Amino acid sequence: MKRREFLSGAVVAGATTGAASLAAPSIVRAQETMEWKMVTTWPKNAPGVGVNAQRFADMVTAMSGGRLTIRLFAAGELVPPFECLDAVQADTAQLAHSTPYYWVGKSPALNFFTTMPFGLTAWELNAWIYFGGGQALWEEVYAPFNVVPFYAGNSGVQSGGWFNREINTLDDLKGLKMRIAGIGGEVMRRLGVAVVVTPAGEIQPALMSGAVDAAEWVGPWLDIAFGMHKAAKYYYVPAFHEPGPGLEVIVNKDRLAALPDDLKAIVKYAARAASETTLADFTFNNIKVFADMREKFPEVELRTFPDAVIAAMGEKTKEVAAEIAERDEVTHKVYEAFMAFNQQAEAYQAYFDLPALRMRQQVFGG
Amino acid sequence: MKRREFLSGAVVAGATTGAASLAAPSIVRAQETMEWKMVTTWPKNAPGVGVNAQRFADMVTAMSGGRLTIRLFAAGELVPPFECLDAVQADTAQLAHSTPYYWVGKSPALNFFTTMPFGLTAWELNAWIYFGGGQALWEEVYAPFNVVPFYAGNSGVQSGGWFNREINTLDDLKGLKMRIAGIGGEVMRRLGVAVVVTPAGEIQPALMSGAVDAAEWVGPWLDIAFGMHKAAKYYYVPAFHEPGPGLEVIVNKDRLAALPDDLKAIVKYAARAASETTLADFTFNNIKVFADMREKFPEVELRTFPDAVIAAMGEKTKEVAAEIAERDEVTHKVYEAFMAFNQQAEAYQAYFDLPALRMRQQVFGG
Repeated sequence: MKRREFLSGAVVAGATTGAASLAAPSIVRAQETMEWKMVTTWPKNAPGVGVNAQRFADMVTAMSGGRLTIRLFAAGELVPPFECLDAVQADTAQLAHSTPYYWVGKSPALNFFTTMPFGLTAWELNAWIYFGGGQALWEEVYAPFNVVPFYAGNSGVQSGGWFNREINTLDDLKGLKMRIAGIGGEVMRRLGVAVVVTPAGEIQPALMSGAVDAAEWVGPWLDIAFGMHKAAKYYYVPAFHEPGPGLEVIVNKDRLAALPDDLKAIVKYAARAASETTLADFTFNNIKVFADMREKFPEVELRTFPDAVIAAMGEKTKEVAAEIAERDEVTHKVYEAFMAFNQQAEAYQAYFDLPALRMRQQVFGG
Repeated sequence: MKRREFLSGAVVAGATTGAASLAAPSIVRAQETMEWKMVTTWPKNAPGVGVNAQRFADMVTAMSGGRLTIRLFAAGELVPPFECLDAVQADTAQLAHSTPYYWVGKSPALNFFTTMPFGLTAWELNAWIYFGGGQALWEEVYAPFNVVPFYAGNSGVQSGGWFNREINTLDDLKGLKMRIAGIGGEVMRRLGVAVVVTPAGEIQPALMSGAVDAAEWVGPWLDIAFGMHKAAKYYYVPAFHEPGPGLEVIVNKDRLAALPDDLKAIVKYAARAASETTLADFTFNNIKVFADMREKFPEVELRTFPDAVIAAMGEKTKEVAAEIAERDEVTHKVYEAFMAFNQQAEAYQAYFDLPALRMRQQVFGG
C-alpha cells in the first residue's frame, strides 16, 4: 500500500457551493490514500475483457476521489495469468479481474459461476447471483482461499466456433480436431472430438495451418478482430456451451474487511456498474461487427448445429454436470441451485424472451 | 441543501490499517455534507420500481460516506407523480427516478428511451445508450429542461395483458375495451380497440368489474401482486408493445455541475449499478412468480397473439413511429438512430440469443 498526497474533490465542491461551507465545515478529517494492485487474466486492453477491467479500476479511482487507486496489471505483468487467484490469496495483488472457471482446479463448483452449456443467459446469471442465493454460495466456494467474489459482467452468448467442414450428423464430429475450452470441451470429447486447448494467441494460427479443424473463441467482435474468418468458412452460431459466461472481481478478504464502509461500497458497486457496462459493450460491438461481417465477408457461411447434434450435446452436458456435482458437497449444493433456477428460467423464457425475439423477427426480420 | 455533522469512514480505516496513518495523514480536508431530494413516479416501495429507486439512493449515500444523502419521496409525497420533471427543472427536487415516456408531452423523442413496440430488448437498450450514441441524443432531448438523464434499469419484456376473451383474429380486437398505455395503446386504437388509460391502482378493479375487457400492466411479478389473475382468464404473453422498458434518473443540471468530481462519478455509477440490480430483480422475481403461478393458478390460460395479429401490430407500429418522427428535428434524429440499431440488433439476435434460447428449450424444455 502506498500513501500519497491527494487533492480533495470536496474542497472544490466547497468553492462552487459558496464560501460559507469553507468557513464552517461540519468536520475536519484525516485523509488517507492507498493504491491496490489488480492482476488480470487478460492481455492489456483486450477488447471486452481488458478494457472493462480498466473501466472498473477507473470507476473506483473516480468515485473514491483518488483515496483508493487501482493499478491494473495485464496477464503476465506481475504474475502469470493462471496464478491470479493465488496472488490475491497471498496478497501479492489485492484484487483480480478474471472469470471463475479459470480456477476449477481449486473447486469444480466455479464452473457454474461462469457458465454451463444450455445454462443461464447473461441477464439470468446475475439475477441468480444477486437475488437467487448465488452470491452466498459463491462466497462459500471462495472462503478457503480468503477471497471475496463480485460479479463483474458477461460477454453474452458466444459463438459455437469456426469449422473447416460442415457438421450435418453426429458422425461428422468423430475424429474432428477442435480447440474448445471447459465443460463444452468435455462434452465434445464424449461425442468423439479430439479436443485441443490452445492459448488465445495460438487459436487462429492453429486453425489457419490446419493443425485443428475447428476452433471456438468468443463472438463476432473478438472473432473477427482475431481473424478467425480468414481461417475457416463455416461459422456455427450460437455456442451450445457458453450461453452467457460471467466475469468476476475477486478481492483479498482481509484487505476488503479493513476498508472503511464507503470504500467497501465503492468496490462493490463499481463491480456492478462495470458489469452493466461490460455486457452493453459486448452487445453493442457484437451487433455492429456482425452487421459489418455480413457485408464485408460474404464468404462466411453461418450454420446452426443440427437438432440431433444439439440433443446429443444436451445429454452429454447433463451427464458431465451430474458427475461434477458428485466431487464435493459444496459443488453439489451449487449444482442443485443452479440447475433448479435454470429449469425455471427456461420455463419462463419459453413464454417471454423467446417469443418476444421471434415477434420482432416477424416484424423487422429480413 | 442541509449540512450536518458526519462521522468519517476514513477514520475507521486508519484505525484498522495501523496507527502510522493516523499519526501522519496525507492531507486534512474540510468535509461538507448535503441532502438531495429525489421525487419518484412510483408508490412507496413499489416492487421493481420504488424499491430500486430506494436502492439507488442508498448506494449514493453509502459510497459517499454520507457526504451526499438522497431522500426519496414517493409519488405525491412532495409533488404529483406527473410533475417530477418540472420539479427537477425548478430545483424543487434535485433529482427524480422515473421513466422517460412519462414526459412525451415535453418531447415525443422520449418514447424511444423507454421502449418501442417490437423494439430493443433490455440488454440492447443500454448497449445503444452507453455505446451507440443514445446518451448524447438523450442529453440533447433533455437540455431545454435543464436536466441530465442517466439510464437506471429495465423491467425486461412485459406481458401482453389479461383478456376476458380470446384474440384469434383481427376482428376480435374490434370494439374491445382495453387499458393499455403509450404507443402500444395508439397501435391498438388503430386496430379498432377502444383504448382506456387507467392509473395503476384502478387497473385490476376495472378489469374485475367488466369496465374493460382487457388490461396490460407489467409482468408476472407485479401482475400477480395486483391480482390480475383473479380478474381475467387469458394471459397474453409477451407484450408486443414493451419488449424492454427503461427507467431513468434525471438530475438538475446545475446541481450536478456543482458537485465535486468524486460525487459526480458516484451519482453516475450508482445509476449504472442500480440499473444492473433492477433488471436482475425483475428477471429473478418474474421467473419465480411465473413458476408459482403455473402451479397455484392452473386456471390461468397462457396465450400468444396470432401471427396475423402480430403482423398488423407491426404495420401500425411502423406507421405510428414514422409519424412521431415527423414532429420535430431532434425526434427525427432519435428515431433514425433507434430504428437503425433495432434493425441490426434483430439481424444479430436471429443468430444468437433467439437460437440460444431455443437450444436450451430443446434440452431442458418440458
